[in-house]
Amino acid sequence: MTDKIKVGIIGYGNLGRGAERAISQQPDMELVAVFSRRGTVQTFDQHVKSVHIDEAKNFQDKIDVMILCGGSATDLPEQTPQFAAMFNTVDSFDTHANIPEYYESVDQVAQASGKTSVISVGWDPGLFSINRVMSEAVLIDGNTYTFWGKGLSQGHSDAVRRVEGVKAGVQYTIPSEEAMDRVRAGENPELSTSEKHKRECFIVLEEGANAEQVAETIKTMPNYFADYDTAVHFITEEELDRDHTAMPHGGFVIHSGKTGAGNDQIVEFSLKLDSNPEFTASVLVAYARAAYRLHQEGQKGAKTVYDIGPGYIHPASPAELRKNFL
Amino acid sequence: MTDKIKVGIIGYGNLGRGAERAISQQPDMELVAVFSRRGTVQTFDQHVKSVHIDEAKNFQDKIDVMILCGGSATDLPEQTPQFAAMFNTVDSFDTHANIPEYYESVDQVAQASGKTSVISVGWDPGLFSINRVMSEAVLIDGNTYTFWGKGLSQGHSDAVRRVEGVKAGVQYTIPSEEAMDRVRAGENPELSTSEKHKRECFIVLEEGANAEQVAETIKTMPNYFADYDTAVHFITEEELDRDHTAMPHGGFVIHSGKTGAGNDQIVEFSLKLDSNPEFTASVLVAYARAAYRLHQEGQKGAKTVYDIGPGYIHPASPAELRKNFL
Repeated sequence: MTDKIKVGIIGYGNLGRGAERAISQQPDMELVAVFSRRGTVQTFDQHVKSVHIDEAKNFQDKIDVMILCGGSATDLPEQTPQFAAMFNTVDSFDTHANIPEYYESVDQVAQASGKTSVISVGWDPGLFSINRVMSEAVLIDGNTYTFWGKGLSQGHSDAVRRVEGVKAGVQYTIPSEEAMDRVRAGENPELSTSEKHKRECFIVLEEGANAEQVAETIKTMPNYFADYDTAVHFITEEELDRDHTAMPHGGFVIHSGKTGAGNDQIVEFSLKLDSNPEFTASVLVAYARAAYRLHQEGQKGAKTVYDIGPGYIHPASPAELRKNFL
Repeated sequence: MTDKIKVGIIGYGNLGRGAERAISQQPDMELVAVFSRRGTVQTFDQHVKSVHIDEAKNFQDKIDVMILCGGSATDLPEQTPQFAAMFNTVDSFDTHANIPEYYESVDQVAQASGKTSVISVGWDPGLFSINRVMSEAVLIDGNTYTFWGKGLSQGHSDAVRRVEGVKAGVQYTIPSEEAMDRVRAGENPELSTSEKHKRECFIVLEEGANAEQVAETIKTMPNYFADYDTAVHFITEEELDRDHTAMPHGGFVIHSGKTGAGNDQIVEFSLKLDSNPEFTASVLVAYARAAYRLHQEGQKGAKTVYDIGPGYIHPASPAELRKNFL
């Protein structure tokens, strides 16, 4: 065994905590320190060093890759260029529309610093992106469908909690089985987002609130629910705490294509995740290995999952992979 | 649009025919010629040049990538090193146990010739191999299960046809739904190949043959059927011709892993193929693009799917992929 890959974590929310757990599962990595704006944080492993984020710059000779666990809205657009000037990095930037601009800003810094930055890693963008591109490349005469869920949606949960009379609540996005079966049958249907998904809400009412009115307000809410098949369930606060605190998610990428004289070929990739942040963090950690290896090979600048051979994320050597997995 | 990638096909059986069809679907490729030991062959597109395999050496300045469509038993071990001395190549060598040795022999030639050879491409080995490695890299505390089918098995069909009293017949391998559901539930069961699959035979009897005896002989055949749940159906020759001439196949790679304090995470990849050879050929053709691009970048020698970024197989540029697919 060669030396372990030395990893740091920037940001210690759900994603950062997932990254700590994931690093501890990997045979060839060690966590050097967790960096947070809060200064010292309570890590799972008490032996892990916890340091204020401003001190990170002093760890340039102690850390091979920084895993950036901040949010896409404000943290990453600022932090990734900042840290790519000093470290190899990996992040989960997921604002799809802004990826080209984000790529350019990170690439410019990383090219100048000679570091390697893998951007927009996770499952969507990430593993789902890989499956969209590979299945279309192979079956160019075809259509790709992405379905999300069953999963807790943060934005939609926030929206139902803002409704008058709602004390607490959560919203799940559920892929439509009917729509998926049409795709799997090779029908190549045209499907809007609302035809592909249903929405399900679990609501705790304020005392004296009118259930019927709350349900109506939710179901007719523009953009969020009006176009969808939405179910609203009322539960107690105890039920909410007992059954709805996990963060499940998942989804499906289904590609339906034709070859030859019209043969149907279906490629399907799916995830069923008990914990969305822990899985996303696990993908980040595997790609931290790729960032390290690419940098060792002299491949600097910003990279995406499209640029990286699948073997780079696995701990085994290329010869072991050919022998045991191919 | 830059110049199209110029492609040749070596071998014109089911796989070579599928490759001709697949190349015609790709926007950035043109088929220069089909090379066969039979000399001239009847191609789908009559404008395609058909040439004896011995003439291939005269096409070194006319072809960017050769797609090798021979079999793994005898053709490829001989042909791939031979052609890697003159061309970039891609092949579907699928004798899993011999891949390391095959890799070495191809790599040696391709390193010396400065060409790029992508070996063992298709769906297993190929897309399934990618999913085995990526899901294990991400969820290292877990188990990967590969199920094959529903698919026509050539070896098992040959075996039933050798049984006395059998005039004609086919055999399908079918993944066990019960076994797959146990895996998807995160049970992490230990499963033998025979616990993961069932076998189904469709048999046309010779006149006067004893159906019961034929069924018994098949079901108790060592290695092939004895350990499996095997169903034997008797049909007419007309039914066989009508319903069982296609070459469907497919399968499932399911990885069940745990993160954090025991959260179940399930990653599943599956294929449902109306035509096995056409799909395998489509994968070969997409990786021919990667072989061409890698060679343009100066990456010579033997490569596997593990070494190649997913974006290399898609016709779009890296910037287009980031904008439209990530």
